[in-house]
Amino acid sequence: HQGYTSACIGKWHLGHLPQYLPTNNGFDYYFGLPYSNDMDRVGGPQGRAAFWDPKSEYWNVPLMRNEQIIERPADQNTLTRRYTEEAVRFIERSKDRPFFLYVAQTMVHVPLFVSNDFRGKSPRGLYGDAVEEIDWSVGRIVETLRREGLAENTLFVFTSDNGPWLPYDQHGGSAGLLREGKGCTYEGGMREPCILWWPGTIQPGVVHDLGTTMDLYTTIVKLAGGEPPSDRVVDGLDLRPALFGTGPSPRDTVFYYRGTELFAVRKGPYKAHFVTQSGYGGDKPVRHDPPVLYHLGQDPSEKFDIARDHPEMIAEILKEVERHRQGLVRGQDQLSQRIEKGP
Amino acid sequence: HQGYTSACIGKWHLGHLPQYLPTNNGFDYYFGLPYSNDMDRVGGPQGRAAFWDPKSEYWNVPLMRNEQIIERPADQNTLTRRYTEEAVRFIERSKDRPFFLYVAQTMVHVPLFVSNDFRGKSPRGLYGDAVEEIDWSVGRIVETLRREGLAENTLFVFTSDNGPWLPYDQHGGSAGLLREGKGCTYEGGMREPCILWWPGTIQPGVVHDLGTTMDLYTTIVKLAGGEPPSDRVVDGLDLRPALFGTGPSPRDTVFYYRGTELFAVRKGPYKAHFVTQSGYGGDKPVRHDPPVLYHLGQDPSEKFDIARDHPEMIAEILKEVERHRQGLVRGQDQLSQRIEKGP
Repeated sequence: HQGYTSACIGKWHLGHLPQYLPTNNGFDYYFGLPYSNDMDRVGGPQGRAAFWDPKSEYWNVPLMRNEQIIERPADQNTLTRRYTEEAVRFIERSKDRPFFLYVAQTMVHVPLFVSNDFRGKSPRGLYGDAVEEIDWSVGRIVETLRREGLAENTLFVFTSDNGPWLPYDQHGGSAGLLREGKGCTYEGGMREPCILWWPGTIQPGVVHDLGTTMDLYTTIVKLAGGEPPSDRVVDGLDLRPALFGTGPSPRDTVFYYRGTELFAVRKGPYKAHFVTQSGYGGDKPVRHDPPVLYHLGQDPSEKFDIARDHPEMIAEILKEVERHRQGLVRGQDQLSQRIEKGP
Repeated sequence: HQGYTSACIGKWHLGHLPQYLPTNNGFDYYFGLPYSNDMDRVGGPQGRAAFWDPKSEYWNVPLMRNEQIIERPADQNTLTRRYTEEAVRFIERSKDRPFFLYVAQTMVHVPLFVSNDFRGKSPRGLYGDAVEEIDWSVGRIVETLRREGLAENTLFVFTSDNGPWLPYDQHGGSAGLLREGKGCTYEGGMREPCILWWPGTIQPGVVHDLGTTMDLYTTIVKLAGGEPPSDRVVDGLDLRPALFGTGPSPRDTVFYYRGTELFAVRKGPYKAHFVTQSGYGGDKPVRHDPPVLYHLGQDPSEKFDIARDHPEMIAEILKEVERHRQGLVRGQDQLSQRIEKGP
């Protein structure tokens, strides 16, 4: 802990049984939904129609404080606002000691909800309205850090977990020029914006170096004066050189898995796809030998296979895969032990 | 003229014969290529390969000053830099009287060229390098306006003529989340960024209202104290309310033509496609009755046809088409009179 008090606010999706909840896994405080907001579906129109005009009562998701359910179904229209208020209160009551706050907004995951203040506010429909409320939320949290005089002593990280959920059309978001979306290993599924803000310590700028969400753990533990555990392999790297401008990011490769299978590998600007499959298209995986190769700097949309022109890069990536496989320790399959209950 | 001195620098594509050149059509000064930089092809590898590693001598395009050819083939590596220097000099020598400067950069149109200072500078390959040199050019012009104390007395407009030329892969650019590219009436072909800068007069902000390049003529003539001619129909509208924040843009509809055929009509956020065809895909035009309807606010990528849910909007757009057709005066076909010469 390094003396830090901690809170998890928002979505938790590592198990809703008591032993898996945040407060039994290192967090001092928890407020949120223990899984996705489209689960526990109990009503509303059939199929996707429920998502086009969503009502909270269609999904019987529980809102929890620590280990207690305080509202079920949660009134989802108020979630972004209440998460924000909880975050602001946690900062206010923790401001005199070190703290770690993890806010995982439930929006903009379908079904989409907004408070009345944001309904119809954007030209982008319900999705845009929900994004505008998230933007408001970020503003409130940053403003709180400034007001409490904590901005210069706090690392603020804003990022996301995956790309747009394409089967939900306008309600699923857009990956812009990136190919495909959530559920697959094309950039539209995996590449996310990440903004790190720490006035006076991180200089404003855009960094093109690589980093992954796994690196946040290692980087933040080190910033807090700790050391990642040494009794196991930790995949995260220390991004401090890239953040503070003292050197390049230590990360040069990214391994893209789908389930337990390695689908693609990125090395520098090059990305080799050994297997490709759309996120939710219903198509079967297609294996490529030699792999399909893209240069993400020149071709971020992954359109133009340049494998034939770069056999040396494919050879280099295959060597990385070999090194990676040698260090791989297969974890225990927890899903095979899960208790399935009927509806 | 309203007392303005004027210059055209860069690409001109309204005829290269003397009577069609800028100095015989209202401009006091001209420096540039009189047509596209991929014309007059005289050498290099077959097909598209010449574009992947372009050399100036493959295209015998003339660089002109006023009505004289001063270099042929033009050294295209230096064009962005020389256009910029010409623009800066024109501002410097015109600073004491009203002036109108039209700079039409030849880049980033294939074949792509950059000066040595910008070669290899971007992570985006030759296309990115050329964009960075355009960015430098804009910076030099803005800086000149500031240095000469003209920024507060000058309307600066930055825009483009069409979307990416998709057959040229990484060298043709990207329309981001917009559908398709140059040559077609989907948004990827037609929608362009437009930045208007006039410190102290235009407030910083993002305007979602509609405007077209045709509106610049009317708006700028009015700003210069003139009136557009009244002996013919002028399609441009006066965008001043939107620029100065005094009201909405007067433009509510856009008519999208391909050749002489009306392919699509936009009204507010809605866009109806009567005919669709890819820009350079070799496919035939497909006619739609009822038209395909998209809501560009909620679906900027034109993916989700909502015609069935909005017959009232289609009826309204058909009424606009009727009004438009009643006011239409067909121009004389100048192309039928052109002189064709063999190679």
